[in-house]
Amino acid sequence: MHKILGIAFLVLAVACGATYAQTTPAKKSLAEKLGYARDAKLVIVHADDLGMTHSVNAASIQGLESGLVTSASIMVPCPWFPEMADYAKTHPEADFGLHLTLTSERVFYRWGPVAPRDKVGSLVDPNGYFHLGWNETTHIDSREVEVELRAQMERALAMGVRPTHLDSHQYRLFENGKEIFQSVLRLGREYKLPVFVVRDWFAERPYLEASLDPGDLVVDHTVTMEPGVAPEKWADFYVKALENLQPGVTVFIIHLAFDDAEMRAATRERDTWGAAWRQRDFDFFSSERFRKLVREQNIKLVTWRQLAQAAR
Amino acid sequence: MHKILGIAFLVLAVACGATYAQTTPAKKSLAEKLGYARDAKLVIVHADDLGMTHSVNAASIQGLESGLVTSASIMVPCPWFPEMADYAKTHPEADFGLHLTLTSERVFYRWGPVAPRDKVGSLVDPNGYFHLGWNETTHIDSREVEVELRAQMERALAMGVRPTHLDSHQYRLFENGKEIFQSVLRLGREYKLPVFVVRDWFAERPYLEASLDPGDLVVDHTVTMEPGVAPEKWADFYVKALENLQPGVTVFIIHLAFDDAEMRAATRERDTWGAAWRQRDFDFFSSERFRKLVREQNIKLVTWRQLAQAAR
Repeated sequence: MHKILGIAFLVLAVACGATYAQTTPAKKSLAEKLGYARDAKLVIVHADDLGMTHSVNAASIQGLESGLVTSASIMVPCPWFPEMADYAKTHPEADFGLHLTLTSERVFYRWGPVAPRDKVGSLVDPNGYFHLGWNETTHIDSREVEVELRAQMERALAMGVRPTHLDSHQYRLFENGKEIFQSVLRLGREYKLPVFVVRDWFAERPYLEASLDPGDLVVDHTVTMEPGVAPEKWADFYVKALENLQPGVTVFIIHLAFDDAEMRAATRERDTWGAAWRQRDFDFFSSERFRKLVREQNIKLVTWRQLAQAAR
Repeated sequence: MHKILGIAFLVLAVACGATYAQTTPAKKSLAEKLGYARDAKLVIVHADDLGMTHSVNAASIQGLESGLVTSASIMVPCPWFPEMADYAKTHPEADFGLHLTLTSERVFYRWGPVAPRDKVGSLVDPNGYFHLGWNETTHIDSREVEVELRAQMERALAMGVRPTHLDSHQYRLFENGKEIFQSVLRLGREYKLPVFVVRDWFAERPYLEASLDPGDLVVDHTVTMEPGVAPEKWADFYVKALENLQPGVTVFIIHLAFDDAEMRAATRERDTWGAAWRQRDFDFFSSERFRKLVREQNIKLVTWRQLAQAAR
């Protein structure tokens, strides 16, 4: 009997040990998994909207090649996607995700779905472009969302992009309910890619956390420029964010382009995320001031690829 | 009997008279119908490829507004079509045709069909863009051509363009057999728009002439820059063409853009019809030299709208 109990305890102990062995690494922070201190400040400097215009591509590539921008994501439906696909193919070390896109928010320069238009009718306007925006009267079919996301993934792979992560143009996939969010999660799990999800969003949108599995990667914070900030306060905004950085992983979502003829024309109907806005982002994130702050604040610049490898 | 014969002759004479009245105006040249001498030299200075890039749009609009470029045509499937549709809507006097497009010939910047992709499978490559080009292995379904042409027409109309004529990007609709040519002819007749057809092409492609009705408008000659011409001979090429102009209607097919960052990137895989090429076209057709030649050679600059009205 004692022997049997003894074996039972042994089995229990082994079972607990196995559980322990499995759960302990999960309790390690991403920073620790990357070999940093638990309270290290990790930052992904992430350029959005690649593929949108040549101006965005050129400025973002320059940012990436400076080493100060560590990651970026590409809009597959956009006309300049082939330029980025070519770059990604010839620069396999670069950290590119897919900036999954379901809107075409500019007026004079537009794009539409990758999937056949008649398969994703709820995503397009009467002229066949993605909607300018979504509002209460836009009825988005979440099954069509998934069809379009898969089409974007397939075109990216077919054209030689090997994405390191998935995120969402204009946060559409995160801010529009559980079903749409789960369609990008499914895609991420199927292709073994982390999806950009931020712990700070959970309070406002509980369905995000509720949809996640323990194996899903979650970053801690995000910083992005706000429309209210005056042009002359641009650098101050980022400096303050960098000086007040919390421990953990913070993703800076930035929008790079040059304030040139193409970009001015493409964004001329409004200033937000326009040509001058993006030039200011470029100027700050290629500045000596930013480089110095990274050093002074002991910030570790990381990539999505590193996070994904650490999380495995 | 005499009376009956007399009536028969009268009927015959009226019938002949009616025929005569109908055919006589058809024998008048387009120049005469426009009030010019029979041997007048009429020229349409026609900018192609509007909508392709912002650079093309900006340079072409500048050309049109100078008065030296009289007409242009717009590529509906291209990303910058909305910019041109907006311009066309707010400048109803401008002479815009549709530059019906079935290819996406550049490498780093691409576009695809307006019709749902799965309805025009023979027109697209595996990534869903129009083919880079057509060759012996490209099997184009002429019914799908017509589906796509109608989709381009419908989007143009829906977005406010009121085209004055139809032509074809890269001459695809003229150089690929009777069935494809007849699809654009049908479209032109249905929407009462002249199709760009040149009498000088008939010898090489008899199906063009054979497909036409007496009511179809035909221009006499066309001039376009050739790939072999050295950059420093650009102006000479056009000057010679203008000095040797034949009587009748000559369409100068030109390609305007600025040699800027967007255009250089969009066309960087080859020089033909590239950024520098288009800047040279812009420079010549906005030059004092060209303006002077028009005056000296007594050239009448006309539009497709004028020709179509004269032909009615």
